[in-house]
Amino acid sequence: MVSPTLLYLQMLISESALRSFTNNIFLAIGCSNEHAGLAADVLLLSDLRGIDSHGVARLVGYVRLWEKGRINANPNITIAHETPTTATVDGDAGLGLVVAPFAMKLAIQKAAQYGSGWVAVRNSNHFGIAGYHALMAVEKNMIGFAMTNASPLVAPTFANERLLGTNPMCYAFPAGKYPPVIVDMATSAAANGKLEIAQRLGKQVPEGWIQDAGGNYTSDPHALKKGGSLLPLGSDREHGSHKGFGLSATVDILSAVLSGANYGPWVPPFVAFLEPPNDPVGLGIGHFVGAMRVDGFRPMDEFKTHMDNWIARFKSASTVDPGQKVVIPGEPELEAETGRRKNGIPLIDAVVDDLNELAERLKVPKL
Amino acid sequence: MVSPTLLYLQMLISESALRSFTNNIFLAIGCSNEHAGLAADVLLLSDLRGIDSHGVARLVGYVRLWEKGRINANPNITIAHETPTTATVDGDAGLGLVVAPFAMKLAIQKAAQYGSGWVAVRNSNHFGIAGYHALMAVEKNMIGFAMTNASPLVAPTFANERLLGTNPMCYAFPAGKYPPVIVDMATSAAANGKLEIAQRLGKQVPEGWIQDAGGNYTSDPHALKKGGSLLPLGSDREHGSHKGFGLSATVDILSAVLSGANYGPWVPPFVAFLEPPNDPVGLGIGHFVGAMRVDGFRPMDEFKTHMDNWIARFKSASTVDPGQKVVIPGEPELEAETGRRKNGIPLIDAVVDDLNELAERLKVPKL
Repeated sequence: MVSPTLLYLQMLISESALRSFTNNIFLAIGCSNEHAGLAADVLLLSDLRGIDSHGVARLVGYVRLWEKGRINANPNITIAHETPTTATVDGDAGLGLVVAPFAMKLAIQKAAQYGSGWVAVRNSNHFGIAGYHALMAVEKNMIGFAMTNASPLVAPTFANERLLGTNPMCYAFPAGKYPPVIVDMATSAAANGKLEIAQRLGKQVPEGWIQDAGGNYTSDPHALKKGGSLLPLGSDREHGSHKGFGLSATVDILSAVLSGANYGPWVPPFVAFLEPPNDPVGLGIGHFVGAMRVDGFRPMDEFKTHMDNWIARFKSASTVDPGQKVVIPGEPELEAETGRRKNGIPLIDAVVDDLNELAERLKVPKL
Repeated sequence: MVSPTLLYLQMLISESALRSFTNNIFLAIGCSNEHAGLAADVLLLSDLRGIDSHGVARLVGYVRLWEKGRINANPNITIAHETPTTATVDGDAGLGLVVAPFAMKLAIQKAAQYGSGWVAVRNSNHFGIAGYHALMAVEKNMIGFAMTNASPLVAPTFANERLLGTNPMCYAFPAGKYPPVIVDMATSAAANGKLEIAQRLGKQVPEGWIQDAGGNYTSDPHALKKGGSLLPLGSDREHGSHKGFGLSATVDILSAVLSGANYGPWVPPFVAFLEPPNDPVGLGIGHFVGAMRVDGFRPMDEFKTHMDNWIARFKSASTVDPGQKVVIPGEPELEAETGRRKNGIPLIDAVVDDLNELAERLKVPKL
């Protein structure tokens, strides 16, 4: 499959050059060495895995929020509440890119000791790709979970207003000879990044992704900017959009009602030009992460053998089009990662220009 | 909304009469008093909550599987593996209706002591509605999770064979003045029960629910019986069916790869006239249940206040059709329950006939 980004003018940048650039930007806004390295690592993994919408293209946005005082570059991340296997973490308005790994480390520690660990997070910001955090558990032979709420773009079934974010959930499972199975998905029918691609190409989007300001289904990719809403996974009631709404609600409740963050329409926007609601119901945005030791259920070698068997069976499934095999969750991202680690990361010119302008402003070396 | 069952000849049966009848059937096949009462309770809640496909209409099927020796009416349910907050339970081929509550009780005990508890189950059978088990946690001021795999009916995205069940997942959250929020959903675009209704009515189903034996989308409700497959939530790749597949895979892995049950195409069929695969990869079917103490994250009163605020905000959302409000997950089922506890449970004549035939065969009083 040709990456949509290949349709634009772009340059290839090596992983190390992009990592060093990103690290410098975070250092320039006052992050500690440790936090800058970690935040860069989260963004880089996103770019490496081909999830361009969640990688360095977001750097400019993070910095703008920091300039507005809505991101704290030096957070004092604390544990606000705790039992042996649960906790609530307060991110002190820090980058989600560092707050979520703090929470996941805590979940992993708890799981190592008691079998499982679950951490709700409040007072945080955008945490990058959910997969990064869930994979931290997989590296320890655990099953990883990560989810986050997000600024409201999605209308629940029957609604004509944006009350939920694209609220992603991720489940990650270690395997044996095969790579981990990573289910990492927005709970909307389509993520915002896909609309942006259609906008740039001047193309229509499939019906079932968005509704316009009047609540009518539309294929206009600009409808979101004109007061429309994204639709939950399932698209309409007949095709199960109430299930997508239910999943998104689950993410919102676990991430924010449980942690003390803002939920639903109160989630602060990710963009600096929109002000947060002036009647917050909590602190910042919320995440929810967890880890369970595989050997808390069965011996790891048995689990790995059966995961491999599961994967092999699904990979060899009979398909409608013999040229198109069943795609194991996480496979396309790993393929992108392998290629990009070797060949570099393609960035479109508009992103490179934005990043270099940012570098100039913060007085760090350009790309 | 008029229940689809109202389109058939039906009778209203009181909760107590139906409970006593169901209890007698389970006693007649050799269940203990405790197990018969519990199994009847699970089925009754399904009928009360309007989920007719998972209630007493399944009694005949359970008994047929028992007659074939595939359900053990007197299981020795054991804990096969354990840490402070995780366990694997072996259901000894018992009714899922009693095995899953055993597992959930264990999860709740662990959560009471350590904050959270997670139990994978193997060697079980159909467990009724997921919501029953998740609600056991809600009654203890905990968040409840329940999922199960099921006999293969669903084709993963791009596939032309049935590799997954409708694999439901349920998340249940206590609230304050409002009833609990219960997200209880099959991970397919439509559940099998909806097809059966269309078949009886001689109606077409919406495109996006099923594909025929050739892998083509079809609106023929009989396509499933002719070698077709149900489609994952999202319906097609463009509308996110890979997400529905990912969710269904998650349920399958947590329920079966983790527990040592059969997964994917190896899950034994729920119907006695189809033989289980002769190369099983595990024991019976699998479930996965969990409980987390709300006060492991924040004080219960704070959580309840914000749950109520969440519910109130979503209930009062602006809607496309002013006559159709946003439906909070669990609301329609509670409405059905309230009405049916008072007025009785409507059973269509075909179901009553089947049940009375069964009663005659097992020598218990008819309905």
